[in-house]
Amino acid sequence: MREGLVSDSAESANLRDRIITASVLVPVAVLASLAGGWLFLCLALPLMCIGILEFFVMEKDRPMQGSSLTGIPTALAIVLGFYLGSDWLWQAALGLGLAATLALEIARQPRRPDYALAQVGTTLCGILYLAFPTAFLVSLRNRPEDGLMWLFVVYAITWGTDTFAYVFGRFFGRTKLAPLISPNKTVEGAIGGIICAWVLAFFILLVAGRLEPRLAPMIVVGPFLAVGGDLFESGLKRIFRVKDSYVAGFNVFPGHGGVLDRIDALVWVASWVFFYLVSSGTA
Amino acid sequence: MREGLVSDSAESANLRDRIITASVLVPVAVLASLAGGWLFLCLALPLMCIGILEFFVMEKDRPMQGSSLTGIPTALAIVLGFYLGSDWLWQAALGLGLAATLALEIARQPRRPDYALAQVGTTLCGILYLAFPTAFLVSLRNRPEDGLMWLFVVYAITWGTDTFAYVFGRFFGRTKLAPLISPNKTVEGAIGGIICAWVLAFFILLVAGRLEPRLAPMIVVGPFLAVGGDLFESGLKRIFRVKDSYVAGFNVFPGHGGVLDRIDALVWVASWVFFYLVSSGTA
Repeated sequence: MREGLVSDSAESANLRDRIITASVLVPVAVLASLAGGWLFLCLALPLMCIGILEFFVMEKDRPMQGSSLTGIPTALAIVLGFYLGSDWLWQAALGLGLAATLALEIARQPRRPDYALAQVGTTLCGILYLAFPTAFLVSLRNRPEDGLMWLFVVYAITWGTDTFAYVFGRFFGRTKLAPLISPNKTVEGAIGGIICAWVLAFFILLVAGRLEPRLAPMIVVGPFLAVGGDLFESGLKRIFRVKDSYVAGFNVFPGHGGVLDRIDALVWVASWVFFYLVSSGTA
Repeated sequence: MREGLVSDSAESANLRDRIITASVLVPVAVLASLAGGWLFLCLALPLMCIGILEFFVMEKDRPMQGSSLTGIPTALAIVLGFYLGSDWLWQAALGLGLAATLALEIARQPRRPDYALAQVGTTLCGILYLAFPTAFLVSLRNRPEDGLMWLFVVYAITWGTDTFAYVFGRFFGRTKLAPLISPNKTVEGAIGGIICAWVLAFFILLVAGRLEPRLAPMIVVGPFLAVGGDLFESGLKRIFRVKDSYVAGFNVFPGHGGVLDRIDALVWVASWVFFYLVSSGTA
């Protein structure tokens, strides 16, 4: 989430970069989402890979070499397993990927088995944080009847919260939400964002003719997770003492902090919607 | 996880309390787990409630009053919904519980809608962090054929990692694992704990005649999540600047930091095993 209280020329330039980036990315995302199938995979997979790279390089004194060499193919295979509906593929990928990480890291530094295990742990965190949610999002999109609707519900909750939190924060922002973790967020922004996301998701379900009372808890909880996922990523950056998450020379979204900053809420919301539908026996 | 590098008389007294507590709690936990059904619920529900209370009071300047009044009944109803296999019960409980929290908090402080929404957010975090994992654990135990085996797999991973990390840490602990978050944990302890948990889970599956290759990723990942869940709770305590998580006058486990300290790894491992079985179509 981004909420500005200060308005100077540097921020205006940043805002201009942001808007240019968004005007390219939003149509691409909308088209790939509408198309679904392999085209949606072609959007989701590269973004996930960059996100995982950003996550791996965040940790100081522990650069990405080993873990991303095995972690990224593992993540790709997990998403592909969910896409193809093949349980053994994602399970084998997860097991082999972590075993390969361990073997590779021991080969690289035979005297440091502790380092090897730490690399396996970091790789696993990246997979749980980014690969599974991507797999869930792809699964949601590929539901035969209503995949597109669920995807737009996820988008409405994620970016609805984010966008309206920015707007409300600029106009009404007074009370800091979590000053230690993310100084620009305000309580007023978060409230405005959450309520607007509820309205957006409500309208999507209404238009799709799927306004069922049992979906209410899913919609009510969603925007809170969007705020929470955003704070969580800000917390990660704070713990690892980095300002922006992007990999040097790899900032694909000018004006934005990196891919992680754009998908931090999405991974939580997609996981929640997927979990809710699976637990209800709807998936 | 608890790993000692220093050994003085205060720690010996603490260790004695710990052992006395464990010698009462472990038989109770084993008996309730073996019995299953309502008896297992009678163990799980009170521990969950204390854990949620501990989580709510952790946050400074925001004591538990409002959120626990609505949050704890909501959590109980969610676990009951999973126990009875009733989707509408847990979904209605979640929706009504959050709506009731909002209404109650607005009634308590009508001029502070931001405070009310923050209370809803905190209540939701407590439910996601503790109520759903408890519901998953109860669901696992109540699988008609193999519930007890899965429960013991979860226990082996959770407390196997914890116990052996303590033992290995005391004897071989040299390298700090995460000095900023949890100063007593060592890399050597974590490695020993993870490997011993693998062996324990392997033997349970072997004895039960359920040693299938497709379960390997679940077992491999489990102990890493036990370590991660433990670090996560330590991180929470650090963010909220509390040393022990227990509610004043409510320390049910003398010698231990509180219920959250004992179940921080369990909630992650139970969620992972449940998710793995559901995603594989085994649940």
